[in-house]
Amino acid sequence: MKQVVSAETIVSMLKQVTSSDKDFVALHEPSFQGNEWTYVKDCLDTGWVSSVGKYVDRLEEMLQEFTGVKRAVAVVNGTAALHICLKLVGVERDDEVIIPALTFIATANAVTYCDAIPHFVDSSEETLGLDPLKLGDYLQEIAEVRNHTCFNKKTGRRIKAVVPMHTFGHPVELDTLVEVCQRYHLELVEDAAESLGSYYKGTHTGNWGRVSALSFNGNKIVTTGGGGAILTNDETLGRLAKHITTTAKVPHKWEFVHDQIGYNYRMPNINAALGCAQLEQLPDFLPKKRALAKFYENQFLHFEGASFVSEPKHCRSNYWLNAIRLSADYMNLRDEILRATNEQGMMTRPVWRLLSSLPMYADAPQMDLSVAKKLEQSIVNIPSSAHLGGTYVEA
Amino acid sequence: MKQVVSAETIVSMLKQVTSSDKDFVALHEPSFQGNEWTYVKDCLDTGWVSSVGKYVDRLEEMLQEFTGVKRAVAVVNGTAALHICLKLVGVERDDEVIIPALTFIATANAVTYCDAIPHFVDSSEETLGLDPLKLGDYLQEIAEVRNHTCFNKKTGRRIKAVVPMHTFGHPVELDTLVEVCQRYHLELVEDAAESLGSYYKGTHTGNWGRVSALSFNGNKIVTTGGGGAILTNDETLGRLAKHITTTAKVPHKWEFVHDQIGYNYRMPNINAALGCAQLEQLPDFLPKKRALAKFYENQFLHFEGASFVSEPKHCRSNYWLNAIRLSADYMNLRDEILRATNEQGMMTRPVWRLLSSLPMYADAPQMDLSVAKKLEQSIVNIPSSAHLGGTYVEA
Ligand SMILES: Cc1ncc(COP(=O)(O)O)c(C=O)c1O
Ligand SMILES: Cc1ncc(COP(=O)(O)O)c(C=O)c1O
Repeated sequence: MKQVVSAETIVSMLKQVTSSDKDFVALHEPSFQGNEWTYVKDCLDTGWVSSVGKYVDRLEEMLQEFTGVKRAVAVVNGTAALHICLKLVGVERDDEVIIPALTFIATANAVTYCDAIPHFVDSSEETLGLDPLKLGDYLQEIAEVRNHTCFNKKTGRRIKAVVPMHTFGHPVELDTLVEVCQRYHLELVEDAAESLGSYYKGTHTGNWGRVSALSFNGNKIVTTGGGGAILTNDETLGRLAKHITTTAKVPHKWEFVHDQIGYNYRMPNINAALGCAQLEQLPDFLPKKRALAKFYENQFLHFEGASFVSEPKHCRSNYWLNAIRLSADYMNLRDEILRATNEQGMMTRPVWRLLSSLPMYADAPQMDLSVAKKLEQSIVNIPSSAHLGGTYVEA
Repeated sequence: MKQVVSAETIVSMLKQVTSSDKDFVALHEPSFQGNEWTYVKDCLDTGWVSSVGKYVDRLEEMLQEFTGVKRAVAVVNGTAALHICLKLVGVERDDEVIIPALTFIATANAVTYCDAIPHFVDSSEETLGLDPLKLGDYLQEIAEVRNHTCFNKKTGRRIKAVVPMHTFGHPVELDTLVEVCQRYHLELVEDAAESLGSYYKGTHTGNWGRVSALSFNGNKIVTTGGGGAILTNDETLGRLAKHITTTAKVPHKWEFVHDQIGYNYRMPNINAALGCAQLEQLPDFLPKKRALAKFYENQFLHFEGASFVSEPKHCRSNYWLNAIRLSADYMNLRDEILRATNEQGMMTRPVWRLLSSLPMYADAPQMDLSVAKKLEQSIVNIPSSAHLGGTYVEA
């Protein structure tokens, strides 16, 4: 009954899911079946499309309610959210910030925007995200804590923060990571760009970090066109997040006084309007995505040489992007599978190149990255849009 | 026949323009009477709201055609545009960048984002923008050119660039400024955030700088909700602008390779859709704004103690924000005028606080700012929306 993985067997398996009259199936496309028109048109009719308007406030309230954080601040995108998160926890010039080598480029760039240096660490086979146990062992070797501050013994630089990323929506082992961060006096910032709707031990991702970042890019589980949010349970930091993402202007009816360096990172009202309509539908998207994942999971039980990436222990994943892993003997098929599926109009994708291999980050400090290297070669993302799961949702 | 300026006389003059059943008249509000809804709905219907889609390309082409620059790159807002403009001309850590003290905070913040230092200079009475003659004299005193590079003799730092800003749409004396920049080997970057539709000697602003920045914020002459653009006549810089504002990703069907530090500054397609519809109407907005300005200009001929700010010599201004200046004897009325007009629902505003007086810029280098200080105390902006000019447009 086992099928051996190959470009052909993957193509025919995917065809079951994607069978439609469309000649192109996206990896992840948004679905606008709710109040998108109504809210966006309301912006146009009232003229409130920009920095003033009710949808930004409403979106922030909806995010607070959905994730359970005390304060959500809507911003222009996930990259901006990460940048400000790092500023908020005090990352400064020449600090090191620990991030996985296996993540989207924005995680590292946000560190660079603070004039700080990414320090790349390895991933876990189970979560695909930062491996907290391996990190703990590594810090024991290279780090030293003086005056409640962590230093890299080799470089002499302060290590200020750790930014785990919940890959494809699968949460990292947050309990263990929180413990490592406490031990080494490191600030925890969650890159939750991909994990809106994902829970670790029953609590939504974004609640463990002192601050966390969401993305509402067009490929995410909900979209605002471009957008993101800063999440925090620290109300002082929440207020500060709002202030510095809105040019640090001191409220006044007409005077222009800004009291610190600020950013124009506010989300325009028209994008927030789209976001409100999308968030209303998140409870509908999640079971569809879960049903699609379960379908894939079952299919891959019968495959030899490839396995489906299921949610980690203690986690409920949003299954934002479904992924398979090729086993060692079949990794050489990756590019053939990518080529065949994409040629037939079914979009698939490898995971990111390890950031430590990109020219601008090649000299950054790093630990042994053997698991991340294996993952880099063996992962293939497969079509994941919520609407594809519609037919599999249980009645 | 002369009327003496006072809170009452200004209120009653403004009432002629703003008479409507609305109980609040904005300083500048957008008007969505064109294809806004059609284009935005097209985005929602096709699902292309984010980083892919035709409206970004179309907006860039329309901007090129309208301004005459070779390359326009749409970005997330005017602040981001300025940030990247400075990067493109090579502003680096610890450089000084010459900017007017009298401008919106974004001009200075963009310099700070490059880890560079704003160097504040004075304004011209006629243009309200950077005074190139005074700058020339000042540089003669404090600057020295070695190896085609300009240094501040006092601080020892390199002076890399000059960023004039076309205040309220009124162009600075670009001919003279270009000449000063050439003499001192300074890069010219125009902050044209306020001057879409403004011309100097028949050529659109944004064509003199090596790169220039536009803003499409909600209060600007056309809006995309939030947005901006980088303009340049240098095609190599134009391509680079596109590349680094889109995460510096190297094009590939599925691989993620980024070849330098990049930014997520792309404008979402849904915002660009709004922008296309707005730009189509710019030829209709401009004469309305001009007619409104002419009406105000005539009114203020009869005022003692206040004068209207008309377009400078050799310029055709977009009259983005109309402004009056109180003469020395009447400057003490400014706050009373602001209070009375705002209380009666007619929005007016002073100009920005001089940036050199804000806490984070108090230590930055500066020249004598006597004109800027006078302008800061004497300017009042008055309602300027295009639709207010509708009744004054000549048949
Ligand atoms: C892991 C991760 N971090 C950060 C980002 C940045 O978000 P954005 O594209 O909204 O800037 C993304 C998404 O693109 C992401 O996947
Ligand atoms: C002079 C000036 N520069 C820069 C900007 C920044 O543009 P944005 O608000 O789109 O970031 C503005 C407008 O807000 C401006 O008036």
